[in-house]
Amino acid sequence: MSSQRPSAVPASVVDLVGFAAYSELAEFGLLATRSVDAPDLDTRQALADGAERAIERERAMLAVVGGPRAAVMAPFADTLTEFDARTRTDDWAEGLLKGVVGHGVAQDFCRTLAAAIEDPVGRRLREVLDRPVPGPAAVAEAGADAEAIEVLGRLGAADEVLASRLALWGRRVVGEALNLVTVLLATHPGLDDLASRAPAALGADIGDGGSRAWIVARLTAEHTRRMDRLQLAA
Amino acid sequence: MSSQRPSAVPASVVDLVGFAAYSELAEFGLLATRSVDAPDLDTRQALADGAERAIERERAMLAVVGGPRAAVMAPFADTLTEFDARTRTDDWAEGLLKGVVGHGVAQDFCRTLAAAIEDPVGRRLREVLDRPVPGPAAVAEAGADAEAIEVLGRLGAADEVLASRLALWGRRVVGEALNLVTVLLATHPGLDDLASRAPAALGADIGDGGSRAWIVARLTAEHTRRMDRLQLAA
Repeated sequence: MSSQRPSAVPASVVDLVGFAAYSELAEFGLLATRSVDAPDLDTRQALADGAERAIERERAMLAVVGGPRAAVMAPFADTLTEFDARTRTDDWAEGLLKGVVGHGVAQDFCRTLAAAIEDPVGRRLREVLDRPVPGPAAVAEAGADAEAIEVLGRLGAADEVLASRLALWGRRVVGEALNLVTVLLATHPGLDDLASRAPAALGADIGDGGSRAWIVARLTAEHTRRMDRLQLAA
Repeated sequence: MSSQRPSAVPASVVDLVGFAAYSELAEFGLLATRSVDAPDLDTRQALADGAERAIERERAMLAVVGGPRAAVMAPFADTLTEFDARTRTDDWAEGLLKGVVGHGVAQDFCRTLAAAIEDPVGRRLREVLDRPVPGPAAVAEAGADAEAIEVLGRLGAADEVLASRLALWGRRVVGEALNLVTVLLATHPGLDDLASRAPAALGADIGDGGSRAWIVARLTAEHTRRMDRLQLAA
Protein backbone atom coordinates (compact mmCIF):
# COMPACT_ATOMS: atom_id res chain seq x y z
CA MET A 1 0.00 0.00 0.00
CA SER A 2 1.43 3.39 -0.94
CA SER A 3 1.67 6.03 1.74
CA GLN A 4 0.04 8.65 -0.49
CA ARG A 5 -3.52 8.58 -1.74
CA PRO A 6 -3.40 8.24 -5.55
CA SER A 7 -4.52 11.60 -6.93
CA ALA A 8 -6.42 9.79 -9.69
CA VAL A 9 -8.99 8.47 -7.17
CA PRO A 10 -11.93 10.91 -6.74
CA ALA A 11 -12.87 12.01 -3.20
CA SER A 12 -16.27 10.30 -3.52
CA VAL A 13 -14.53 6.96 -4.09
CA VAL A 14 -12.26 7.51 -1.08
CA ASP A 15 -15.41 8.19 0.96
CA LEU A 16 -17.05 4.98 -0.21
CA VAL A 17 -13.94 2.90 0.45
CA GLY A 18 -13.57 4.52 3.87
CA PHE A 19 -17.10 3.52 4.84
CA ALA A 20 -16.84 0.05 3.27
CA ALA A 21 -13.52 -0.66 5.02
CA TYR A 22 -14.75 0.64 8.37
CA SER A 23 -17.84 -1.53 8.18
CA GLU A 24 -15.57 -4.57 7.65
CA LEU A 25 -13.55 -3.64 10.74
CA ALA A 26 -16.83 -3.31 12.65
CA GLU A 27 -18.01 -6.70 11.38
CA PHE A 28 -14.68 -8.21 12.44
CA GLY A 29 -15.40 -6.98 15.97
CA LEU A 30 -18.98 -8.31 16.04
CA LEU A 31 -18.02 -11.75 14.73
CA ALA A 32 -14.92 -12.00 16.92
CA THR A 33 -16.84 -11.03 20.06
CA ARG A 34 -19.44 -13.71 19.36
CA SER A 35 -16.62 -16.18 18.65
CA VAL A 36 -15.13 -15.61 22.10
CA ASP A 37 -18.35 -16.51 23.92
CA ALA A 38 -19.62 -19.07 21.39
CA PRO A 39 -21.51 -22.06 22.81
CA ASP A 40 -19.14 -24.68 21.30
CA LEU A 41 -15.74 -25.03 19.66
CA ASP A 42 -17.08 -25.48 16.11
CA THR A 43 -19.10 -22.25 16.33
CA ARG A 44 -16.18 -20.44 17.93
CA GLN A 45 -13.93 -21.50 15.06
CA ALA A 46 -16.47 -20.71 12.33
CA LEU A 47 -17.02 -17.15 13.58
CA ALA A 48 -13.28 -16.62 14.01
CA ASP A 49 -12.82 -17.64 10.37
CA GLY A 50 -15.54 -15.16 9.35
CA ALA A 51 -13.87 -12.41 11.38
CA GLU A 52 -10.52 -13.14 9.77
CA ARG A 53 -12.12 -12.80 6.32
CA ALA A 54 -13.59 -9.41 7.25
CA ILE A 55 -10.07 -8.10 7.90
CA GLU A 56 -8.88 -9.56 4.59
CA ARG A 57 -11.70 -7.72 2.77
CA GLU A 58 -10.94 -4.51 4.67
CA ARG A 59 -7.29 -4.66 3.61
CA ALA A 60 -8.21 -5.41 -0.01
CA MET A 61 -10.61 -2.45 -0.10
CA LEU A 62 -8.12 -0.02 1.36
CA ALA A 63 -5.54 -1.19 -1.17
CA VAL A 64 -7.87 0.04 -3.94
CA VAL A 65 -7.35 3.67 -2.86
CA GLY A 66 -4.05 3.35 -0.99
CA GLY A 67 -3.17 6.02 1.54
CA PRO A 68 -2.98 5.82 5.36
CA ARG A 69 -5.63 3.37 6.49
CA ALA A 70 -6.92 5.20 9.56
CA ALA A 71 -7.19 8.50 7.67
CA VAL A 72 -9.45 6.93 5.05
CA MET A 73 -11.71 5.28 7.63
CA ALA A 74 -11.72 7.88 10.42
CA PRO A 75 -14.56 10.03 9.00
CA PHE A 76 -16.95 7.10 9.49
CA ALA A 77 -15.97 5.96 12.97
CA ASP A 78 -18.49 8.19 14.74
CA THR A 79 -21.32 7.30 12.38
CA LEU A 80 -21.05 3.62 13.25
CA THR A 81 -20.57 4.35 16.95
CA GLU A 82 -24.11 5.75 17.04
CA PHE A 83 -25.55 2.77 15.13
CA ASP A 84 -23.71 0.52 17.54
CA ALA A 85 -25.07 2.26 20.61
CA ARG A 86 -28.63 2.18 19.29
CA THR A 87 -28.46 -1.58 18.64
CA ARG A 88 -26.61 -2.68 21.75
CA THR A 89 -27.60 -6.09 23.10
CA ASP A 90 -26.29 -8.56 25.66
CA ASP A 91 -27.93 -11.48 23.90
CA TRP A 92 -25.50 -13.69 21.97
CA ALA A 93 -27.76 -14.54 19.00
CA GLU A 94 -29.04 -10.95 18.74
CA GLY A 95 -25.47 -9.69 18.66
CA LEU A 96 -24.66 -12.09 15.84
CA LEU A 97 -27.78 -11.11 13.87
CA LYS A 98 -26.89 -7.44 14.35
CA GLY A 99 -23.65 -8.16 12.51
CA VAL A 100 -25.31 -10.10 9.71
CA VAL A 101 -28.01 -7.46 9.16
CA GLY A 102 -25.88 -4.36 9.67
CA HIS A 103 -22.95 -5.60 7.63
CA GLY A 104 -25.32 -6.97 4.98
CA VAL A 105 -26.97 -3.57 4.52
CA ALA A 106 -23.56 -1.88 4.47
CA GLN A 107 -22.29 -4.29 1.79
CA ASP A 108 -25.43 -3.85 -0.36
CA PHE A 109 -25.14 -0.08 0.00
CA CYS A 110 -21.49 -0.14 -1.05
CA ARG A 111 -22.20 -2.50 -3.98
CA THR A 112 -24.93 -0.18 -5.23
CA LEU A 113 -22.75 2.92 -5.04
CA ALA A 114 -19.73 1.09 -6.50
CA ALA A 115 -21.77 0.50 -9.66
CA ALA A 116 -21.45 4.25 -10.35
CA ILE A 117 -17.62 4.19 -10.15
CA GLU A 118 -15.74 3.94 -13.42
CA ASP A 119 -13.24 1.20 -14.15
CA PRO A 120 -10.59 0.17 -13.21
CA VAL A 121 -11.16 1.43 -9.63
CA GLY A 122 -14.88 0.54 -9.74
CA ARG A 123 -14.14 -2.95 -11.01
CA ARG A 124 -11.52 -3.61 -8.32
CA LEU A 125 -13.86 -2.43 -5.60
CA ARG A 126 -16.73 -4.57 -6.90
CA GLU A 127 -14.40 -7.57 -7.04
CA VAL A 128 -13.64 -7.19 -3.33
CA LEU A 129 -17.31 -6.67 -2.43
CA ASP A 130 -18.35 -9.75 -4.42
CA ARG A 131 -15.39 -11.90 -3.40
CA PRO A 132 -16.59 -15.49 -3.03
CA VAL A 133 -16.45 -17.20 0.34
CA PRO A 134 -14.24 -20.33 0.35
CA GLY A 135 -16.19 -23.54 0.90
CA PRO A 136 -19.18 -25.46 -0.49
CA ALA A 137 -21.57 -23.82 -2.99
CA ALA A 138 -24.26 -23.22 -0.33
CA VAL A 139 -21.71 -21.35 1.81
CA ALA A 140 -20.41 -19.33 -1.12
CA GLU A 141 -23.95 -18.25 -2.00
CA ALA A 142 -24.60 -17.00 1.54
CA GLY A 143 -21.86 -14.41 1.00
CA ALA A 144 -19.53 -12.64 3.40
CA ASP A 145 -21.19 -13.74 6.66
CA ALA A 146 -21.80 -17.33 5.60
CA GLU A 147 -20.76 -18.84 8.96
CA ALA A 148 -22.91 -16.50 11.04
CA ILE A 149 -25.87 -17.08 8.71
CA GLU A 150 -25.45 -20.84 9.05
CA VAL A 151 -25.29 -20.62 12.87
CA LEU A 152 -28.33 -18.33 13.12
CA GLY A 153 -30.35 -20.44 10.67
CA ARG A 154 -29.64 -23.53 12.76
CA LEU A 155 -30.52 -21.82 16.07
CA GLY A 156 -33.75 -20.37 14.66
CA ALA A 157 -34.85 -23.69 13.16
CA ALA A 158 -34.43 -25.41 16.54
CA ASP A 159 -36.24 -22.82 18.65
CA GLU A 160 -39.44 -21.13 17.49
CA VAL A 161 -39.49 -18.61 20.32
CA LEU A 162 -35.94 -17.54 19.54
CA ALA A 163 -36.81 -17.29 15.83
CA SER A 164 -39.67 -14.88 16.62
CA ARG A 165 -37.47 -12.78 18.87
CA LEU A 166 -34.70 -12.67 16.25
CA ALA A 167 -37.20 -11.68 13.53
CA LEU A 168 -38.31 -8.75 15.68
CA TRP A 169 -34.71 -7.81 16.46
CA GLY A 170 -33.81 -7.98 12.77
CA ARG A 171 -36.50 -5.38 12.01
CA ARG A 172 -35.11 -3.11 14.70
CA VAL A 173 -31.53 -3.43 13.40
CA VAL A 174 -32.46 -2.95 9.75
CA GLY A 175 -34.43 0.18 10.68
CA GLU A 176 -31.33 1.63 12.33
CA ALA A 177 -29.12 0.53 9.44
CA LEU A 178 -31.38 2.17 6.83
CA ASN A 179 -31.51 5.29 8.96
CA LEU A 180 -27.70 5.31 8.99
CA VAL A 181 -27.69 5.06 5.19
CA THR A 182 -29.98 8.09 4.96
CA VAL A 183 -27.74 10.05 7.33
CA LEU A 184 -24.62 9.05 5.37
CA LEU A 185 -26.13 10.26 2.10
CA ALA A 186 -27.32 13.51 3.67
CA THR A 187 -23.94 14.30 5.25
CA HIS A 188 -21.45 13.03 2.64
CA PRO A 189 -21.94 14.79 -0.72
CA GLY A 190 -19.46 12.39 -2.37
CA LEU A 191 -21.58 9.38 -1.42
CA ASP A 192 -24.77 11.20 -2.43
CA ASP A 193 -23.22 11.95 -5.83
CA LEU A 194 -22.47 8.24 -6.37
CA ALA A 195 -26.00 7.41 -5.22
CA SER A 196 -27.50 9.79 -7.77
CA ARG A 197 -25.57 8.10 -10.58
CA ALA A 198 -26.02 4.49 -9.42
CA PRO A 199 -29.54 3.88 -10.82
CA ALA A 200 -28.52 4.79 -14.38
CA ALA A 201 -25.35 2.69 -14.04
CA LEU A 202 -27.51 -0.26 -12.97
CA GLY A 203 -30.12 0.42 -15.69
CA ALA A 204 -32.80 0.99 -13.03
CA ASP A 205 -35.86 3.25 -13.13
CA ILE A 206 -35.87 5.19 -9.87
CA GLY A 207 -39.51 6.32 -10.10
CA ASP A 208 -40.69 9.52 -8.41
CA GLY A 209 -38.89 9.34 -5.07
CA GLY A 210 -35.38 10.25 -6.13
CA SER A 211 -32.21 8.22 -5.75
CA ARG A 212 -32.13 8.19 -1.92
CA ALA A 213 -35.59 6.63 -1.68
CA TRP A 214 -34.67 4.21 -4.47
CA ILE A 215 -31.59 3.04 -2.57
CA VAL A 216 -33.49 2.52 0.68
CA ALA A 217 -36.11 0.45 -1.20
CA ARG A 218 -33.38 -1.59 -2.85
CA LEU A 219 -31.58 -2.26 0.44
CA THR A 220 -34.89 -3.21 2.08
CA ALA A 221 -35.54 -5.79 -0.66
CA GLU A 222 -32.05 -7.27 -0.23
CA HIS A 223 -32.61 -7.41 3.53
CA THR A 224 -35.84 -9.38 2.99
CA ARG A 225 -33.95 -11.92 0.86
CA ARG A 226 -31.26 -12.20 3.55
CA MET A 227 -33.85 -12.84 6.29
CA ASP A 228 -35.44 -15.46 4.00
CA ARG A 229 -32.09 -17.25 3.78
CA LEU A 230 -32.06 -17.19 7.60
CA GLN A 231 -35.65 -18.45 7.57
CA LEU A 232 -36.62 -15.49 9.73
CA ALA A 233 -39.56 -13.19 8.92
CA ALA A 234 -38.27 -9.84 7.60
CA MET B 1 -6.95 -30.15 4.65
CA SER B 2 -7.66 -33.88 4.50
CA SER B 3 -10.55 -35.25 6.52
CA GLN B 4 -8.39 -38.07 7.95
CA ARG B 5 -5.48 -37.65 10.31
CA PRO B 6 -2.34 -38.86 8.52
CA SER B 7 -1.40 -42.13 10.19
CA ALA B 8 2.27 -41.19 9.92
CA VAL B 9 1.86 -38.43 12.52
CA PRO B 10 2.48 -39.73 16.07
CA ALA B 11 -0.15 -39.05 18.73
CA SER B 12 2.30 -36.86 20.68
CA VAL B 13 2.62 -34.54 17.68
CA VAL B 14 -1.16 -34.35 17.30
CA ASP B 15 -1.32 -33.38 20.99
CA LEU B 16 1.25 -30.64 20.54
CA VAL B 17 -0.45 -29.26 17.44
CA GLY B 18 -3.83 -29.38 19.20
CA PHE B 19 -2.51 -27.29 22.07
CA ALA B 20 -0.56 -24.92 19.82
CA ALA B 21 -3.57 -24.35 17.54
CA TYR B 22 -5.95 -23.87 20.44
CA SER B 23 -3.66 -21.30 22.02
CA GLU B 24 -3.73 -19.36 18.72
CA LEU B 25 -7.53 -19.40 18.73
CA ALA B 26 -7.43 -18.16 22.32
CA GLU B 27 -4.99 -15.40 21.38
CA PHE B 28 -7.26 -14.42 18.50
CA GLY B 29 -10.05 -13.91 21.04
CA LEU B 30 -7.91 -11.89 23.45
CA LEU B 31 -6.53 -9.58 20.74
CA ALA B 32 -9.91 -9.19 19.02
CA THR B 33 -11.67 -8.33 22.28
CA ARG B 34 -9.10 -5.63 23.02
CA SER B 35 -9.43 -4.40 19.42
CA VAL B 36 -13.17 -3.85 19.86
CA ASP B 37 -12.74 -1.55 22.87
CA ALA B 38 -9.41 -0.03 21.82
CA PRO B 39 -8.86 3.64 22.73
CA ASP B 40 -8.27 4.77 19.12
CA LEU B 41 -8.65 3.62 15.54
CA ASP B 42 -4.93 2.89 14.98
CA THR B 43 -4.81 0.60 18.02
CA ARG B 44 -8.09 -1.04 17.03
CA GLN B 45 -6.69 -1.79 13.59
CA ALA B 46 -3.30 -3.01 14.85
CA LEU B 47 -4.87 -5.50 17.26
CA ALA B 48 -7.34 -6.69 14.60
CA ASP B 49 -4.36 -7.37 12.31
CA GLY B 50 -2.68 -9.32 15.10
CA ALA B 51 -5.86 -11.33 15.69
CA GLU B 52 -6.14 -12.13 11.99
CA ARG B 53 -2.57 -13.45 12.02
CA ALA B 54 -3.33 -15.73 14.98
CA ILE B 55 -6.04 -17.45 12.91
CA GLU B 56 -3.63 -17.78 9.98
CA ARG B 57 -1.08 -19.47 12.26
CA GLU B 58 -3.77 -21.71 13.74
CA ARG B 59 -4.79 -22.89 10.27
CA ALA B 60 -1.19 -23.45 9.21
CA MET B 61 -0.51 -25.53 12.34
CA LEU B 62 -3.60 -27.69 11.89
CA ALA B 63 -2.63 -28.26 8.27
CA VAL B 64 0.58 -29.92 9.52
CA VAL B 65 -1.42 -32.80 11.00
CA GLY B 66 -4.64 -32.56 8.96
CA GLY B 67 -7.80 -34.08 10.37
CA PRO B 68 -10.95 -32.42 11.75
CA ARG B 69 -9.90 -29.16 13.38
CA ALA B 70 -12.15 -29.27 16.43
CA ALA B 71 -11.21 -32.89 17.21
CA VAL B 72 -7.52 -31.99 17.32
CA MET B 73 -8.05 -28.95 19.57
CA ALA B 74 -10.91 -30.14 21.78
CA PRO B 75 -8.74 -31.96 24.38
CA PHE B 76 -7.19 -28.59 25.34
CA ALA B 77 -10.29 -26.41 25.52
CA ASP B 78 -10.91 -27.09 29.22
CA THR B 79 -7.28 -26.58 30.20
CA LEU B 80 -7.28 -23.06 28.82
CA THR B 81 -10.71 -22.31 30.26
CA GLU B 82 -9.24 -22.68 33.73
CA PHE B 83 -6.21 -20.48 32.92
CA ASP B 84 -8.64 -17.93 31.50
CA ALA B 85 -10.84 -17.93 34.59
CA ARG B 86 -7.85 -17.55 36.91
CA THR B 87 -6.54 -14.52 34.99
CA ARG B 88 -9.82 -12.74 34.32
CA THR B 89 -9.60 -8.95 34.28
CA ASP B 90 -11.81 -6.04 33.27
CA ASP B 91 -8.82 -3.78 32.70
CA TRP B 92 -8.01 -3.18 29.03
CA ALA B 93 -4.21 -3.11 29.31
CA GLU B 94 -4.14 -6.08 31.70
CA GLY B 95 -6.28 -8.04 29.25
CA LEU B 96 -3.84 -7.27 26.47
CA LEU B 97 -0.81 -8.21 28.60
CA LYS B 98 -2.51 -11.47 29.55
CA GLY B 99 -2.59 -12.32 25.85
CA VAL B 100 1.04 -11.36 25.27
CA VAL B 101 2.30 -13.28 28.32
CA GLY B 102 0.01 -16.31 28.04
CA HIS B 103 0.44 -16.73 24.31
CA GLY B 104 4.17 -16.03 24.58
CA VAL B 105 4.63 -18.83 27.13
CA ALA B 106 2.47 -21.15 24.99
CA GLN B 107 4.55 -20.40 21.90
CA ASP B 108 7.86 -20.90 23.73
CA PHE B 109 6.54 -24.17 25.18
CA CYS B 110 5.49 -25.39 21.73
CA ARG B 111 8.80 -24.32 20.15
CA THR B 112 10.72 -26.24 22.80
CA LEU B 113 8.68 -29.42 22.35
CA ALA B 114 8.69 -29.09 18.54
CA ALA B 115 12.49 -29.37 18.65
CA ALA B 116 12.02 -33.03 19.60
CA ILE B 117 9.85 -33.82 16.56
CA GLU B 118 11.56 -35.37 13.57
CA ASP B 119 11.46 -33.80 10.12
CA PRO B 120 9.53 -33.13 7.96
CA VAL B 121 6.62 -32.67 10.41
CA GLY B 122 8.87 -31.05 13.02
CA ARG B 123 10.35 -28.69 10.46
CA ARG B 124 6.93 -27.61 9.19
CA LEU B 125 5.67 -27.00 12.70
CA ARG B 126 8.75 -24.98 13.64
CA GLU B 127 8.34 -22.92 10.48
CA VAL B 128 4.80 -21.92 11.53
CA LEU B 129 5.92 -21.17 15.11
CA ASP B 130 8.81 -19.02 13.87
CA ARG B 131 6.91 -17.40 11.00
CA PRO B 132 8.07 -13.79 10.70
CA VAL B 133 5.62 -10.95 11.30
CA PRO B 134 5.18 -8.70 8.24
CA GLY B 135 6.51 -5.18 8.75
CA PRO B 136 9.67 -3.35 9.86
CA ALA B 137 12.58 -5.26 11.42
CA ALA B 138 11.72 -4.09 14.95
CA VAL B 139 8.20 -5.46 14.51
CA ALA B 140 9.42 -8.74 13.05
CA GLU B 141 11.76 -9.22 16.01
CA ALA B 142 8.93 -8.74 18.50
CA GLY B 143 7.31 -11.89 17.13
CA ALA B 144 3.71 -13.02 16.92
CA ASP B 145 2.18 -10.36 19.15
CA ALA B 146 4.21 -7.46 17.78
CA GLU B 147 1.28 -5.01 17.71
CA ALA B 148 0.16 -5.74 21.27
CA ILE B 149 3.77 -5.48 22.49
CA GLU B 150 4.14 -2.12 20.76
CA VAL B 151 0.90 -0.80 22.29
CA LEU B 152 1.77 -2.00 25.80
CA GLY B 153 5.33 -0.67 25.57
CA ARG B 154 3.97 2.75 24.61
CA LEU B 155 1.35 2.78 27.39
CA GLY B 156 3.86 1.69 30.03
CA ALA B 157 6.44 4.27 28.96
CA ALA B 158 3.87 7.06 29.33
CA ASP B 159 2.50 6.04 32.73
CA GLU B 160 4.76 4.84 35.53
CA VAL B 161 1.87 3.78 37.77
CA LEU B 162 0.39 1.69 34.98
CA ALA B 163 3.81 0.18 34.25
CA SER B 164 4.11 -0.97 37.90
CA ARG B 165 0.62 -2.41 37.87
CA LEU B 166 1.31 -4.24 34.58
CA ALA B 167 4.59 -5.63 35.91
CA LEU B 168 2.73 -7.07 38.90
CA TRP B 169 -0.02 -8.43 36.65
CA GLY B 170 2.55 -10.00 34.32
CA ARG B 171 3.99 -11.95 37.25
CA ARG B 172 0.53 -13.20 38.16
CA VAL B 173 -0.21 -14.29 34.57
CA VAL B 174 3.14 -15.98 34.01
CA GLY B 175 2.69 -17.90 37.25
CA GLU B 176 -0.63 -19.24 36.03
CA ALA B 177 0.81 -19.97 32.58
CA LEU B 178 3.76 -21.93 34.00
CA ASN B 179 1.35 -23.81 36.26
CA LEU B 180 -0.67 -24.70 33.16
CA VAL B 181 2.47 -26.02 31.48
CA THR B 182 3.16 -28.25 34.47
CA VAL B 183 -0.42 -29.55 34.43
CA LEU B 184 -0.22 -30.19 30.67
CA LEU B 185 2.97 -32.23 31.02
CA ALA B 186 1.56 -34.18 33.96
CA THR B 187 -1.69 -35.04 32.18
CA HIS B 188 -0.60 -35.56 28.56
CA PRO B 189 2.00 -38.37 28.28
CA GLY B 190 2.58 -37.48 24.60
CA LEU B 191 3.63 -33.95 25.52
CA ASP B 192 5.72 -35.20 28.42
CA ASP B 193 7.50 -37.60 26.06
CA LEU B 194 8.41 -34.73 23.72
CA ALA B 195 9.52 -32.69 26.74
CA SER B 196 11.85 -35.48 27.88
CA ARG B 197 13.50 -35.57 24.45
CA ALA B 198 13.64 -31.78 23.84
CA PRO B 199 16.79 -30.99 25.89
CA ALA B 200 18.94 -33.47 23.93
CA ALA B 201 17.46 -32.22 20.64
CA LEU B 202 18.43 -28.69 21.66
CA GLY B 203 21.85 -29.75 22.93
CA ALA B 204 20.97 -28.56 26.45
CA ASP B 205 22.15 -29.87 29.81
CA ILE B 206 19.05 -30.27 31.97
CA GLY B 207 20.88 -30.48 35.26
CA ASP B 208 19.43 -32.34 38.25
CA GLY B 209 15.77 -31.29 38.09
CA GLY B 210 14.59 -33.34 35.15
CA SER B 211 13.04 -32.17 31.90
CA ARG B 212 9.90 -30.60 33.42
CA ALA B 213 11.89 -28.32 35.69
CA TRP B 214 14.26 -27.52 32.82
CA ILE B 215 11.32 -26.45 30.62
CA VAL B 216 9.81 -24.23 33.32
CA ALA B 217 13.20 -22.55 33.83
CA ARG B 218 13.58 -22.06 30.08
CA LEU B 219 10.10 -20.55 29.72
CA THR B 220 10.73 -18.27 32.70
CA ALA B 221 13.91 -16.96 31.07
CA GLU B 222 12.05 -16.29 27.79
CA HIS B 223 9.33 -14.51 29.75
CA THR B 224 11.94 -12.25 31.36
CA ARG B 225 13.26 -11.30 27.91
CA ARG B 226 9.70 -10.59 26.73
CA MET B 227 9.00 -8.32 29.70
CA ASP B 228 12.32 -6.54 28.98
CA ARG B 229 11.14 -5.84 25.44
CA LEU B 230 7.99 -4.35 27.01
CA GLN B 231 10.21 -2.40 29.42
CA LEU B 232 8.29 -3.94 32.30
CA ALA B 233 9.96 -5.60 35.31
CA ALA B 234 9.57 -9.38 35.07
